[in-house]
Amino acid sequence: MSQIHPIDVILHKRDGVALTDDEIEAFVRAIVERTPERQLVTDAQIASLLMAVFERGLNARELATLTAAMRFSGDTFDAGPLKTFTVDKHSTGGVGDKTSLLIAPVLAAAGLAHPTPEGVPGICVPMISGRSLGHTGGTLDKLETIPGFDTQLNLRQLADTLIKCGAALIGQTPRIVPADRILYALRDHTGTVESPFLITASIMSKKLAESLNALVLDVKVGCGAFMPTYEKSKQLAELLVQTGEAAGTRTAALLTSMDQPLGRFSGTWVEVWECVDIMKQIRHPMSADLIELSNILSGWMLYFAGQAKTPGAGAELSNKILVSGEAYKAWLKIVETQGGDISVFDDPAAHHKPKATRAVTADRDGFLHSMNCKQVGWAVQRLGAGREKPGDPVSAHAGVESHAKLGDWLRKDQPVFTLYSEDPRLLDEPEQMLRETLAISTVPPEKQALVRETVTA
Amino acid sequence: MSQIHPIDVILHKRDGVALTDDEIEAFVRAIVERTPERQLVTDAQIASLLMAVFERGLNARELATLTAAMRFSGDTFDAGPLKTFTVDKHSTGGVGDKTSLLIAPVLAAAGLAHPTPEGVPGICVPMISGRSLGHTGGTLDKLETIPGFDTQLNLRQLADTLIKCGAALIGQTPRIVPADRILYALRDHTGTVESPFLITASIMSKKLAESLNALVLDVKVGCGAFMPTYEKSKQLAELLVQTGEAAGTRTAALLTSMDQPLGRFSGTWVEVWECVDIMKQIRHPMSADLIELSNILSGWMLYFAGQAKTPGAGAELSNKILVSGEAYKAWLKIVETQGGDISVFDDPAAHHKPKATRAVTADRDGFLHSMNCKQVGWAVQRLGAGREKPGDPVSAHAGVESHAKLGDWLRKDQPVFTLYSEDPRLLDEPEQMLRETLAISTVPPEKQALVRETVTA
Repeated sequence: MSQIHPIDVILHKRDGVALTDDEIEAFVRAIVERTPERQLVTDAQIASLLMAVFERGLNARELATLTAAMRFSGDTFDAGPLKTFTVDKHSTGGVGDKTSLLIAPVLAAAGLAHPTPEGVPGICVPMISGRSLGHTGGTLDKLETIPGFDTQLNLRQLADTLIKCGAALIGQTPRIVPADRILYALRDHTGTVESPFLITASIMSKKLAESLNALVLDVKVGCGAFMPTYEKSKQLAELLVQTGEAAGTRTAALLTSMDQPLGRFSGTWVEVWECVDIMKQIRHPMSADLIELSNILSGWMLYFAGQAKTPGAGAELSNKILVSGEAYKAWLKIVETQGGDISVFDDPAAHHKPKATRAVTADRDGFLHSMNCKQVGWAVQRLGAGREKPGDPVSAHAGVESHAKLGDWLRKDQPVFTLYSEDPRLLDEPEQMLRETLAISTVPPEKQALVRETVTA
Repeated sequence: MSQIHPIDVILHKRDGVALTDDEIEAFVRAIVERTPERQLVTDAQIASLLMAVFERGLNARELATLTAAMRFSGDTFDAGPLKTFTVDKHSTGGVGDKTSLLIAPVLAAAGLAHPTPEGVPGICVPMISGRSLGHTGGTLDKLETIPGFDTQLNLRQLADTLIKCGAALIGQTPRIVPADRILYALRDHTGTVESPFLITASIMSKKLAESLNALVLDVKVGCGAFMPTYEKSKQLAELLVQTGEAAGTRTAALLTSMDQPLGRFSGTWVEVWECVDIMKQIRHPMSADLIELSNILSGWMLYFAGQAKTPGAGAELSNKILVSGEAYKAWLKIVETQGGDISVFDDPAAHHKPKATRAVTADRDGFLHSMNCKQVGWAVQRLGAGREKPGDPVSAHAGVESHAKLGDWLRKDQPVFTLYSEDPRLLDEPEQMLRETLAISTVPPEKQALVRETVTA
């Protein structure tokens, strides 16, 4: 750690002294360069700094520097040679949140329709996604239910896929942002996960390593959100935008409602199925909120990319691309290029093979008034879609189907959810969890807007 | 950790929620009961909690519970069977601070003069001391310059020595307060040393493990003190008193000046020498402040023990015991009982055998206005009296002799300090350090009281 000792960095942050860029960079370097023989910094020291940051926060410069130091702690994708407009979307995690599976094809289609002079799609989406975490699903787990679909591309293959398809849906490589892997494992273990500053550095270091011209963030609010209050979600949104813009990436963050699962299905394959249906113009009424949110997010991305005059016009364009079938064509191209078997999309319902199902019904007449959306997420995970610890397999055919949305009128015994699992023994607990969480009332709930607020620079 | 998970304890403290007694006790138990195979709690988790405590503090109940959990994390001394009054003194650490070597014999003499019906000294001082740390000296290192003196008594031998001598001067056993050993090593390493709450728990868990009826604390203030400001020292004093009283131990804390070395010598054997001279009625003018402070502290102890009506009367009694030669008799008895060779006290100056000396002189006429007392402490340590890391040997004959006190008029070239070392190569740096730190001025400094404030329950 050259002249800078980890302990001094800890002492400064502990006492509320802003860290210098040198201090932050040296600390991050020590984290990734240490070896069992050369403990440049110990886990205990990292934990101590993480807690000090949790309690003291980071100013805008410190946060930008930490994010950059993490971003450049390993390999980064360099989109420069492609001479295209790179854009991505990131969500803080929801239940049934599968907008990535619609947004990537929409943007890819828009990019393919407007190639650069060099023949590269005019928009590229180098989407690096994650796995199920806590009560939220993971895009990679969903994609891997497509037979043959390979999410483990290297950066060369990522570039090739972008040139050909305009989008690629891949997982993190071990060499991208290694500092975040180390820090995240320690945060999880030492009670320092929920810091908006550390969350921002974690999210933005990974996203900015994709070399993005623009980024749209879907920050969830409500009972299914990761952040505990609207104010904390808003603070996170502001930090994300501030940090993205400081790195030269156009950034917008939308605060969106996560009070109930998004769309019709929550799980693994069932979520792919729902998106394939939408792209094939089979619009199930339960998917309306999913389509609306996807178009709004895509709209911002198309606006940033210069294909729409306003985000609203972008949303209209997105819907047009969905309806025209262009998105579906782009989707098939991406999946095929990444080795997936597109024949499963011919009849996605037939590919859904749970071994056991169970209905959760209304216990009285009334309006569906509320549910603990986080509890619904946990039920989905317990059905087999989640994992207890990293590396565990997830079930391809686990999930929950929603038959009603908040505010819908229910008759007693009408199904509200259907549970799917590959193991009949896994049904009881989630059924109980869902029963407990449903509130049915004679008065309708207050209608909540899907997008509550938009944060821009 | 039974039902309580370390991470939940961290989350509560992190978020400012007061910890329950169960949580604190379970965490401390996990710290001492963990093994490499059974990591009930990891270093990173402990570090994270320490930083959360650093930032959030502890309320009086939490601090009392933490102190008790640490105190009972291993063996404790049980003075109950002795049916005596146990009392001890603790100092937060100073330069030339050797009051323990006078106080223990004074109190022992008072106890021997008033035996219990069972023939045990009416006052016993089970003094468990530490080693040099940072810029401050350690009582054990000084005692061990007496040939044969054994500081490593077990608890049985401690009781025997108290019954015979009324005082014992020993080091910590590995089985007394093991939680503090683990926590201290981690605090040192993770930037969480300076928390008044953690300092209090560390000091008081060890002192209360001595089974004390009363405790007097010497909390240093000024430029040689461990705490950076008067206010922090005062806060520490209040926490120490509050925590002692909560455990049923009468406790007083004196805020005392540490703006210059206490007494004539700072080092190892030289400090024993100075005390032996005092007990033999050889009162060097440079020792006046040392004698005064020792009597004040002893006075509080005699007052708590019921041998004086007021702390002031106790101080007078203490001085009487010193002057009468009773303290010196008790001293010889303690040293002989602990295996020490008392013949070295016949001519302590002859036992002082530095290989090299050097004088630091006044560079002009004027009043000795100020010095950086911490810097003086570091100079003493660099001369050989300190250690770089635990376990390093210390030099018996290293030290600094003070020839002037703050406010004294100096003539140019008059010696202010004499440096002693066993290695001539170790003189240059400390000489430089001392030269730099001396401020000589035409105006005298403001006179500072030795005892600035007294904190009691």
